[in-house]
Amino acid sequence: MTDCQAEGPVNTTPMDLYEKLSTQGDKVRTLKAEKADKADIDAAVQLLLKLKVDYKTLTGQDYKAGCPPSNSVAPQDNGPLADEGEDMVDPWNVSTSSAKGVDYDKLIVRFGSSKIDQELVDRIERVTGQKPHRFLRRGIFFSHRDMHQILDAYENKRSFYLYTGRGPSSEAMHVGHLIPFIFTKWLQDVFDIPLVIQLTDDEKYLWKDLSLEESHRYAVENAKDIIACGFDVNKTFIFSDLDYMGMSPGFYRNVVKIQKHVTFNQVKGIFGFTDSDCIGKISFPAIQAAPSFSTSFPQIFNGRKDVQCLIPCAIDQDPYFRMTRDVAPRIGYPKPALLHSTFFPALQGAQTKMSASDPNSSIFLTDTAKQIKNKINKHAFSGGKDTIEEHRKYGGNTEVDVSFMYLTFFLEDDEQLEKIRQDYTSGALLTGELKKCLIETLQPMITSHQDRRKQVTDEIVQQFMTPRRLDFNY
Amino acid sequence: MTDCQAEGPVNTTPMDLYEKLSTQGDKVRTLKAEKADKADIDAAVQLLLKLKVDYKTLTGQDYKAGCPPSNSVAPQDNGPLADEGEDMVDPWNVSTSSAKGVDYDKLIVRFGSSKIDQELVDRIERVTGQKPHRFLRRGIFFSHRDMHQILDAYENKRSFYLYTGRGPSSEAMHVGHLIPFIFTKWLQDVFDIPLVIQLTDDEKYLWKDLSLEESHRYAVENAKDIIACGFDVNKTFIFSDLDYMGMSPGFYRNVVKIQKHVTFNQVKGIFGFTDSDCIGKISFPAIQAAPSFSTSFPQIFNGRKDVQCLIPCAIDQDPYFRMTRDVAPRIGYPKPALLHSTFFPALQGAQTKMSASDPNSSIFLTDTAKQIKNKINKHAFSGGKDTIEEHRKYGGNTEVDVSFMYLTFFLEDDEQLEKIRQDYTSGALLTGELKKCLIETLQPMITSHQDRRKQVTDEIVQQFMTPRRLDFNY
Repeated sequence: MTDCQAEGPVNTTPMDLYEKLSTQGDKVRTLKAEKADKADIDAAVQLLLKLKVDYKTLTGQDYKAGCPPSNSVAPQDNGPLADEGEDMVDPWNVSTSSAKGVDYDKLIVRFGSSKIDQELVDRIERVTGQKPHRFLRRGIFFSHRDMHQILDAYENKRSFYLYTGRGPSSEAMHVGHLIPFIFTKWLQDVFDIPLVIQLTDDEKYLWKDLSLEESHRYAVENAKDIIACGFDVNKTFIFSDLDYMGMSPGFYRNVVKIQKHVTFNQVKGIFGFTDSDCIGKISFPAIQAAPSFSTSFPQIFNGRKDVQCLIPCAIDQDPYFRMTRDVAPRIGYPKPALLHSTFFPALQGAQTKMSASDPNSSIFLTDTAKQIKNKINKHAFSGGKDTIEEHRKYGGNTEVDVSFMYLTFFLEDDEQLEKIRQDYTSGALLTGELKKCLIETLQPMITSHQDRRKQVTDEIVQQFMTPRRLDFNY
Repeated sequence: MTDCQAEGPVNTTPMDLYEKLSTQGDKVRTLKAEKADKADIDAAVQLLLKLKVDYKTLTGQDYKAGCPPSNSVAPQDNGPLADEGEDMVDPWNVSTSSAKGVDYDKLIVRFGSSKIDQELVDRIERVTGQKPHRFLRRGIFFSHRDMHQILDAYENKRSFYLYTGRGPSSEAMHVGHLIPFIFTKWLQDVFDIPLVIQLTDDEKYLWKDLSLEESHRYAVENAKDIIACGFDVNKTFIFSDLDYMGMSPGFYRNVVKIQKHVTFNQVKGIFGFTDSDCIGKISFPAIQAAPSFSTSFPQIFNGRKDVQCLIPCAIDQDPYFRMTRDVAPRIGYPKPALLHSTFFPALQGAQTKMSASDPNSSIFLTDTAKQIKNKINKHAFSGGKDTIEEHRKYGGNTEVDVSFMYLTFFLEDDEQLEKIRQDYTSGALLTGELKKCLIETLQPMITSHQDRRKQVTDEIVQQFMTPRRLDFNY
């Protein structure tokens, strides 16, 4: 039911694939033993992973060396596969054993999405006439589904709309939470299209030990931080599920349509739900799926059902939209396109996603300049050496250094970033100096966010959150 | 999680119960073999059934003679139990092998509800100062939950409200569909309280091969027949789920609250859902549950959450409300009370519920006087004898005669009904004459329904279906 299955192998038997896998496994081992070129090893590993996905798709079972397939079984689990030692990524869990973070190339293969390559970045530049956002230039948005289709349509004067969202699990948002919004604002500016932002307060009520009132309050508080990113009120509709479900003639109808076309078996495979989960969790994926269809917003799209949707989000949200893309053609709607971002690393290192409940795991949007300075100096995992002497001699490692990673997210100047990378790697730049660069980047950014947020009155929030026509003619 | 479980046995071991059951089973067999008094056999069977329910509640397993309990297992299935040969009753299936229809006394024991006895009927008469409706006088509404509580509150000047509903699976409604509405109108008249009527067009979309538009259209068409029963527009709110979910600030919030407190395991036990069912079906019970709570109608109850609900419905809907009553205290709401009706028999006999898709299985609200006459004469299952001579000699059997059953539903005059029963049983009244009584009862009833329905304009439907304050001060 997922795309990777739909695009899976045809005309091949499980035994064929098993033999290809054995051969490819041997090849990888040989290359590694021979210390072959990294590029060659990588290519061989990619193919091995691809074959494993095909094998699971065909047989419903994980490939195990030395265990040829039994009589072929239909696939039962359509979710992403995580072998032992592989990264674990779903909407509630992200974990990896590597300090560099999740292996995103592997994730692309496992999820069956496409890499955002230089060609696509160049095309976005050509089509929009704008310099690509640093998140595109630096591979922070690294994966997509059907972005070329969106650009084809756009070139033919056919519009699309943006949909992104947030689960309001607490009042506190950190800088990582801004990534999809910063990028979405850029997309809205360069394409000049409607944007809908879903706040899943119902989800947070279902998953967390929160009352409906609390999760709804968090939704409104989070909306203020989102609005402070600079969205245009005439082009943006922000909604709480708890409110909007009771205000829209189209939203619930789409939710029910989706719910009719997804079975418990499917959500079990995709999200890992069990029989002990409440029925609210089990049916929730339809609620995150519904804003992917323009009929969920009749006030904006005037009832049109053919306006395609582009969803910028972190890669961990992809399972929702694989499900959505599977359902779309069966209920007569276009599949949403996607742009996936990497995860924003915790200050302590890239092994996990940050936690809004640990104040030292990231820089919060409410932190003072002093707190920012202290947190970075105290907690930001360093790729530097233990002593200044060693650092000068061997240089630091930007691939695991969290301060450097944060700079790739927030420092706009490519040349300055490259110089920092070179100097830190050579040892010319010390860890304290690197951290100072980050502090000086984040402090004014957070201060001006706080200034903008202060100007977001309840009345402005109310405007953004009122179902209404936007400044587009449909 | 159901009431019967909550009220189940305490301080007893599975082995104790197993032994009691074996003894009781022997006793029933002995009584039957000795052709003992029917009342004695019935009492022994009732106790046997009660013990079986307790056994299943305690062990999670069905009692089997000769198979003592293994080490006790927690109950997994909270649904009603149907042993082999027992009647099968849930919201989608009703079947029995008896021409007299379902054994309702057994059902009361199995569902853990209470019988509407003469004492309760008398009390309703005392409290309301009105002659009890024929459905109460004749045991058509035969079972209840917490009706005494409702009357206690009413006597202490505390109000309650009525909730009933219909699944609009087609445009065609038959006379059986009117039973809950006829009775609900009487309740509204004698208690003078608000009434909400749910049309589950979302349910019918999920369960049937219907589009959203079709099931919504059926909801509106059915509303016209419901309005034609004579409800007071100032005291009655009729709603389609597909519409009202998108119009109410309270309904979805209650749906989500309920969905958080019911697991898939529970709905699997109660409704028999499987992993292959769509997530819409799995979460639907929360949508039928939500109108049981006054906060689902803030426009009527002004946000008050303590107004208790009384639900008149056919007994097959009870599983929804057992679930609702279990959830209610956990989300801070009063449990709804219930009044359960028997099933309206098909013309062909009382073994099954009628089918709206078989035009000859009942009298439809659109039937002409001639169609009514023909259907009854041709299809109504008769308890009469094969020849007039035999009939005169041995008499007919009103317990299986469908025309007589229909008269118990629709003929208001108790004395006339009793005379018909006696004359038919003695053979003085022939089958053709009995059928004529029914025809003459139904023809004017249906004609005047049709006249009233003609007067129900789209504007009137619109009035009933607009969320608004009713003529009550909360």
